Amino acid sequence: MELTLVIGSANQRLGDAVALILEPDRADPVVERFPDGELHVTLPHSLRGNDVYVLQSTGPPVDQQLMELLLLVDACRRGGAGRITTVIPYFGYARQDRRRAPGEAIAARVVADLLRAVRVDRVLVVDPHTPGLEAVFEMPLDALSAVPVLAAGLRPTLPTDAVVVAPDLGAVKRAESYAALLGLPMVIVRKRRISGTSVRAEEVVGAIDGRVPVIIDDMISTGATVCAAMQALLEHGARASVLVAATHGLFVGPAPQRLRELPIEHLVVTDSLPSAVGLPPSAEVVSIDRLLADAIRRLHDDQPLDDLVLFA
Amino acid sequence: MELTLVIGSANQRLGDAVALILEPDRADPVVERFPDGELHVTLPHSLRGNDVYVLQSTGPPVDQQLMELLLLVDACRRGGAGRITTVIPYFGYARQDRRRAPGEAIAARVVADLLRAVRVDRVLVVDPHTPGLEAVFEMPLDALSAVPVLAAGLRPTLPTDAVVVAPDLGAVKRAESYAALLGLPMVIVRKRRISGTSVRAEEVVGAIDGRVPVIIDDMISTGATVCAAMQALLEHGARASVLVAATHGLFVGPAPQRLRELPIEHLVVTDSLPSAVGLPPSAEVVSIDRLLADAIRRLHDDQPLDDLVLFA
Amino acid sequence: MELTLVIGSANQRLGDAVALILEPDRADPVVERFPDGELHVTLPHSLRGNDVYVLQSTGPPVDQQLMELLLLVDACRRGGAGRITTVIPYFGYARQDRRRAPGEAIAARVVADLLRAVRVDRVLVVDPHTPGLEAVFEMPLDALSAVPVLAAGLRPTLPTDAVVVAPDLGAVKRAESYAALLGLPMVIVRKRRISGTSVRAEEVVGAIDGRVPVIIDDMISTGATVCAAMQALLEHGARASVLVAATHGLFVGPAPQRLRELPIEHLVVTDSLPSAVGLPPSAEVVSIDRLLADAIRRLHDDQPLDDLVLFA
Amino acid sequence: MELTLVIGSANQRLGDAVALILEPDRADPVVERFPDGELHVTLPHSLRGNDVYVLQSTGPPVDQQLMELLLLVDACRRGGAGRITTVIPYFGYARQDRRRAPGEAIAARVVADLLRAVRVDRVLVVDPHTPGLEAVFEMPLDALSAVPVLAAGLRPTLPTDAVVVAPDLGAVKRAESYAALLGLPMVIVRKRRISGTSVRAEEVVGAIDGRVPVIIDDMISTGATVCAAMQALLEHGARASVLVAATHGLFVGPAPQRLRELPIEHLVVTDSLPSAVGLPPSAEVVSIDRLLADAIRRLHDDQPLDDLVLFA
Amino acid sequence: MELTLVIGSANQRLGDAVALILEPDRADPVVERFPDGELHVTLPHSLRGNDVYVLQSTGPPVDQQLMELLLLVDACRRGGAGRITTVIPYFGYARQDRRRAPGEAIAARVVADLLRAVRVDRVLVVDPHTPGLEAVFEMPLDALSAVPVLAAGLRPTLPTDAVVVAPDLGAVKRAESYAALLGLPMVIVRKRRISGTSVRAEEVVGAIDGRVPVIIDDMISTGATVCAAMQALLEHGARASVLVAATHGLFVGPAPQRLRELPIEHLVVTDSLPSAVGLPPSAEVVSIDRLLADAIRRLHDDQPLDDLVLFA
Amino acid sequence: MELTLVIGSANQRLGDAVALILEPDRADPVVERFPDGELHVTLPHSLRGNDVYVLQSTGPPVDQQLMELLLLVDACRRGGAGRITTVIPYFGYARQDRRRAPGEAIAARVVADLLRAVRVDRVLVVDPHTPGLEAVFEMPLDALSAVPVLAAGLRPTLPTDAVVVAPDLGAVKRAESYAALLGLPMVIVRKRRISGTSVRAEEVVGAIDGRVPVIIDDMISTGATVCAAMQALLEHGARASVLVAATHGLFVGPAPQRLRELPIEHLVVTDSLPSAVGLPPSAEVVSIDRLLADAIRRLHDDQPLDDLVLFA
Repeated sequence: MELTLVIGSANQRLGDAVALILEPDRADPVVERFPDGELHVTLPHSLRGNDVYVLQSTGPPVDQQLMELLLLVDACRRGGAGRITTVIPYFGYARQDRRRAPGEAIAARVVADLLRAVRVDRVLVVDPHTPGLEAVFEMPLDALSAVPVLAAGLRPTLPTDAVVVAPDLGAVKRAESYAALLGLPMVIVRKRRISGTSVRAEEVVGAIDGRVPVIIDDMISTGATVCAAMQALLEHGARASVLVAATHGLFVGPAPQRLRELPIEHLVVTDSLPSAVGLPPSAEVVSIDRLLADAIRRLHDDQPLDDLVLFA
Repeated sequence: MELTLVIGSANQRLGDAVALILEPDRADPVVERFPDGELHVTLPHSLRGNDVYVLQSTGPPVDQQLMELLLLVDACRRGGAGRITTVIPYFGYARQDRRRAPGEAIAARVVADLLRAVRVDRVLVVDPHTPGLEAVFEMPLDALSAVPVLAAGLRPTLPTDAVVVAPDLGAVKRAESYAALLGLPMVIVRKRRISGTSVRAEEVVGAIDGRVPVIIDDMISTGATVCAAMQALLEHGARASVLVAATHGLFVGPAPQRLRELPIEHLVVTDSLPSAVGLPPSAEVVSIDRLLADAIRRLHDDQPLDDLVLFA
Repeated sequence: MELTLVIGSANQRLGDAVALILEPDRADPVVERFPDGELHVTLPHSLRGNDVYVLQSTGPPVDQQLMELLLLVDACRRGGAGRITTVIPYFGYARQDRRRAPGEAIAARVVADLLRAVRVDRVLVVDPHTPGLEAVFEMPLDALSAVPVLAAGLRPTLPTDAVVVAPDLGAVKRAESYAALLGLPMVIVRKRRISGTSVRAEEVVGAIDGRVPVIIDDMISTGATVCAAMQALLEHGARASVLVAATHGLFVGPAPQRLRELPIEHLVVTDSLPSAVGLPPSAEVVSIDRLLADAIRRLHDDQPLDDLVLFA
Repeated sequence: MELTLVIGSANQRLGDAVALILEPDRADPVVERFPDGELHVTLPHSLRGNDVYVLQSTGPPVDQQLMELLLLVDACRRGGAGRITTVIPYFGYARQDRRRAPGEAIAARVVADLLRAVRVDRVLVVDPHTPGLEAVFEMPLDALSAVPVLAAGLRPTLPTDAVVVAPDLGAVKRAESYAALLGLPMVIVRKRRISGTSVRAEEVVGAIDGRVPVIIDDMISTGATVCAAMQALLEHGARASVLVAATHGLFVGPAPQRLRELPIEHLVVTDSLPSAVGLPPSAEVVSIDRLLADAIRRLHDDQPLDDLVLFA
Repeated sequence: MELTLVIGSANQRLGDAVALILEPDRADPVVERFPDGELHVTLPHSLRGNDVYVLQSTGPPVDQQLMELLLLVDACRRGGAGRITTVIPYFGYARQDRRRAPGEAIAARVVADLLRAVRVDRVLVVDPHTPGLEAVFEMPLDALSAVPVLAAGLRPTLPTDAVVVAPDLGAVKRAESYAALLGLPMVIVRKRRISGTSVRAEEVVGAIDGRVPVIIDDMISTGATVCAAMQALLEHGARASVLVAATHGLFVGPAPQRLRELPIEHLVVTDSLPSAVGLPPSAEVVSIDRLLADAIRRLHDDQPLDDLVLFA
Repeated sequence: MELTLVIGSANQRLGDAVALILEPDRADPVVERFPDGELHVTLPHSLRGNDVYVLQSTGPPVDQQLMELLLLVDACRRGGAGRITTVIPYFGYARQDRRRAPGEAIAARVVADLLRAVRVDRVLVVDPHTPGLEAVFEMPLDALSAVPVLAAGLRPTLPTDAVVVAPDLGAVKRAESYAALLGLPMVIVRKRRISGTSVRAEEVVGAIDGRVPVIIDDMISTGATVCAAMQALLEHGARASVLVAATHGLFVGPAPQRLRELPIEHLVVTDSLPSAVGLPPSAEVVSIDRLLADAIRRLHDDQPLDDLVLFA
């Protein structure tokens, strides 16, 4: 089976970079949007019998990106693809992984079911928000970790008295992974409910006084989590300087404004999503091209992914 | 089972009108869009055991409307709905009902499979572009006809020498239905390939000389079909005055401009989609609220839909 | 994977011809019918791991042919076939592709679901009556076109003043394909409802006066369509001489009698179905053996079928 | 839910008799066969929400009867039936319940999968050839026993020295049921392989000398089993007089001739299949109308079937 | 539909208590184990058309309890149950909800798939270990919370200076629920990796000095978590007195011994599992009978469960 | 695809023997049981793309063995196995292959559905109790026959006047297979109901007087069948010496005691299950290692199994 790469419109540059490394058969789809907004995809040549990797993040605008992914998979299947792996560097809707109130949907499961509906054989994601995502999918899913790439990006600017910070409880596992790679201690910020009222305050667990925080998270969306954590850290005596690392840089809404107001020395994100505008000058984008190319190559060659995956 | 109506954001006004007639239990969902563009839906109260009708057209922006529909269905199902019928007045992606070139997807089938993936029990649509749509769905689908409603809308302004016009071959069946209801003759416009070259010209089949055309179609998207038909009709001696009727008024792109340049006496569309802006003053919107309310009521009461459906 | 051909009893001669070209592994099944009419099939040797093509038209008697196809597929699957493609030159029940009246079944979808039930991987058909058939199937379906073969069959007897005739609206796309290949103009015959009554008359669209019609269709069943078209063409001044081409020659009921009464110079059909008796002397059967062999070979070699398929 | 009975063409008289007892809503389908042999079914009125029972044996011609059943179920489902139970008095293809040689299909499982493909909810059969049939179906299946009806039919002509005979090992369980109801002893006939050669002889197990055999079986097809058993019984001293009872009377091929040559005093079969021609004068048909009506009524009323079923 | 309760052997006493409250139709199954260890279940009477609730925890011995549950569901379905809800107070294998190392299975998903394989319609669990369990199931799952029951059990012995303790990060959400109900502050114990080595130490987050800890968790298995937490709390100055609450009391292996060595004032667990032996005298079992009866009654009456569920 | 063997804990020794012959890639799983009794499996290295055979009998304790099998398959699938064949020498729950009383489950079908739920591609069993087992499975199943191995084991001690004995009707087909291989006559023992009462007596069909019985069966569970048969044979004049052969030696409950009391010259069973304790000195275990290795090798090499399978 020939290795074919189909690059969706959400990751054009990252896809080109992966292709430069892999040198696969490329089937660059024509993705049109009709005047009524309907997508229309066409693959340029036959994929019959090939081992096809469809690369498409489902970031903003998430519904269009998702629909494009589904149509690309359908086109691959009808065109005779031998095996279809979707490579979704940023997996949207991951946060809706359970009902948090009556009457909700479970969007992450819906997306998993939609991918099954078009008969995807296998899924690759990078640092999904939900650690148990694979149990939600019927087909095998592997979650690659960009933490080594990001840690390497942080290292040149890392002060000796830095401390890895998990900005909420959901980030603790990931922070431990950073701390191990960087040889640093770790502190946790968590929201504490103030008894008797509904007000919440940030609580800092661990020693941060006089040290430089390295706030890490799986994604930066509006920047609210990073800002709240930084405020709490400063109140607990952290140095007024911060490093930030996150796999997915969405930077939506007030994020650019918020980040510019923080004393960020270095902000590192990957190119799982196209670059945002208005980022602070300290921002750096490190690429996951080698990570993805390595994972795709191994899958194609039937080699294990184990050391590329962050097991919990 | 109680009859519950869930109105999606694509058809708020039509839904309200249907609800006024049906007086169902209403479960008006809260549909939010997070800063990163992800949809979040919440049903306001339990639907446990109810006979639920989710009303949502999948018009522009089609991918968001579709995703909202899928999430609403998932929320209904997890909340214990007894039976879920999706009522999709305008069914998007219907035109991609086969591969017209190698490498394409079949988007209409993909959408059918997505609705199956969230376990819809039954589907209602109105005048879909693809007449054989029901064979594409695994669950039963009924296609209601808005032609009687539109024909009634045309009647007050109908000149005695009017002729129903099918602007292409795909519209012939529907034009016959109008012609029968209005007691008018019919002509057909079709694109003819001019032998030896790739140029195509419009051909008019039937007598139009000196008569007023009533161009009908299932939808008006960019207005190109209506414009091309009108030009051909004028060249064949039609009166410089035209009536137009279509179930679905998308009016995207150059449509408002194009339509304003035509000598349209009366343009009738339904409210299957929210009203467009910039329509010509001759435009009238007739409501399918009674049609939908009637169909929903009958389904709930286990009565046949037969006379509401246009069988081919 | 070895290429294995399993020839059902419906296409014994065509299958032999295909096998002569392909030189595949042949697994000629023993197909018995017990005294109570039950079919019993046995494959002669193991197909374990093979790339199996089961050739069986589902023409008259359609239910037996279909059941034989389903049992052959089951025997292949239980015997370990690696991949099963059904090659169905004539796909029966295609005309029942939607409900045309309340209370009907959709037989074409039922057949598609039966083929899925025995887990067919892929389907090949030739010129199916329903152009959107592929959207009805869950597995990939490719519709080969026999038009080039039939056009080549017509060419030697083609007068210079011939005109391709679509005998009804459903045949227009196919007629355009003939017209393009033969470099001829095209006319359309359609049934026109005579206003105020339920009587219908044939209408001829395009210039036929003094010219020789070449009536084409996907199939000739009872011959009624061809006869009605010819009568209308003669009334519009066509020469009293006609050529006829159709992919599938069923020739059931009054067909032989009807065709003998027409001034047919040349009638060309393929061998998608076994030869009928009582055909006019002008009848010629051209073989689709090379078309099928070519398609099977390409599928086996993972090559595209694109130029063998008539995209609409 | 209203109880609706849909009577297929295979059991018209039995269906009428069941309907006389049940007085259900009747939805008598129009079953046409087109000139090309394709079936076309239409239900006369809406079944929306009803509890539908489709009655159709799959006897000769088995493939047509089966296809009619599948199309009727599809029409019921698309028409909105609330629940669909197929009542198949004679279930064809039951004997092909395993592969008895390499390369075979398992037709009984294929039929079970076809019924699942059209989404039958539940199945009723009468005395199927395969006792473990229910494990082959995904949906619940109940096997009614006609033995009490047949035993009652035998009783008036039963000599006091009668002996129930199982004509092969597969009939032993059923023979025990007859013997218990009639208060008679039982003997078994089995084919014995004569060591060293492939010749087989019939062996009689139990005392038959001077007694009247009552040969029972689930079905009489060509009559071969009954004839061979009778010959062996006569060789072992049975009286030259015999009673025969079988649920399903197919009487195909040489059966009428063979049976006329036997000294049959009384032959009792049910009306699970339409009456055959050329039966001996001693033949009597007893009806399972009450058995089926009783079972359908109980299913509709959610009552147990237990005493109508022969558990093994 | 009649409400029927089927009580599996894992929860005989709890089931009896639920039945006393609900007064349902009871279908007490006969559950035998053959000499070879194979389970055999029989329902005592028909459940045809009923709304059936099968109550069975899947605690130790988990595989037998699970198999019994699967067989009971199959017996219900074949017997014609109208709707089947499995009520699984303790859901085993929940901790294997993702792969924590290469080569593992995801047992929680396997169990979800097994329940789907026997066609369960709906699932009720109580305080599952995995908060996102519902996204792992295809059918709707509701997770009832026993925290109010347990909090009520704690209240009589609660000192005024008590502090709710989450013994690890996974217990924080649940601890917040207790803290809110009891009006107490909360502290967290977490395992901290000591940098440079693989040794881990317990870290206590929040003020515990001189106060009485109330350690809460979803389950007590070997008691290791509670013991480690208590040791850390004591080291941080907690009073040498502790209250413990957990929904599920497995008390396997060294648990009784370990617990007896702790200064436990009051230990409260529910009867989701049968009582263990050797518990400390301070142990109290509070019943979830009313919780389950209430939930079942509401599901049967199509009422919402919302306030019985702990949304995260 | 590389051939990989995964040996479950139920057949460790047999698996080692098979591996010695096949010399496959071995992926010996770590199978742990947690203190709460939950299984945890881990595969030692990647199986990505391999042709994997999971060997696990489902004998006592059947539920644990079955669950281990299901988890091993899940681990293989998630780890990327290319194809998964379960090799189940002893298939438990086979006797529950139909409902023998109202209210029962069909455990054999449940197990088949569970194996489908974890997406097994193919199943191999040895001499299953139910001859029609393959029709119960959705995926292809082949039933290997150990009769040649057992017959070879009997031959050295076979007296010249031996007679093969089928101890009940279900064993007749298998006894015929032995008789043919050994060149011996056959007799049948069956339970005869004594008319008018519920007492049953054993009946012996065929000549046994003065001869040595060779009782054969698919399995020896409690030994009851063999004992009852022997008693009847002795009463009919058999020599007080017996040979016994069975594929599966469960020897549960009173079996060792019962067998020691019989005059068994030679008892032969296979190693489909681990050796029991307390067997009589005359017991011999013959290995099916070559049979399994041969079958696995052929499946891997896409060769037919036909002569290894006992077709009925």
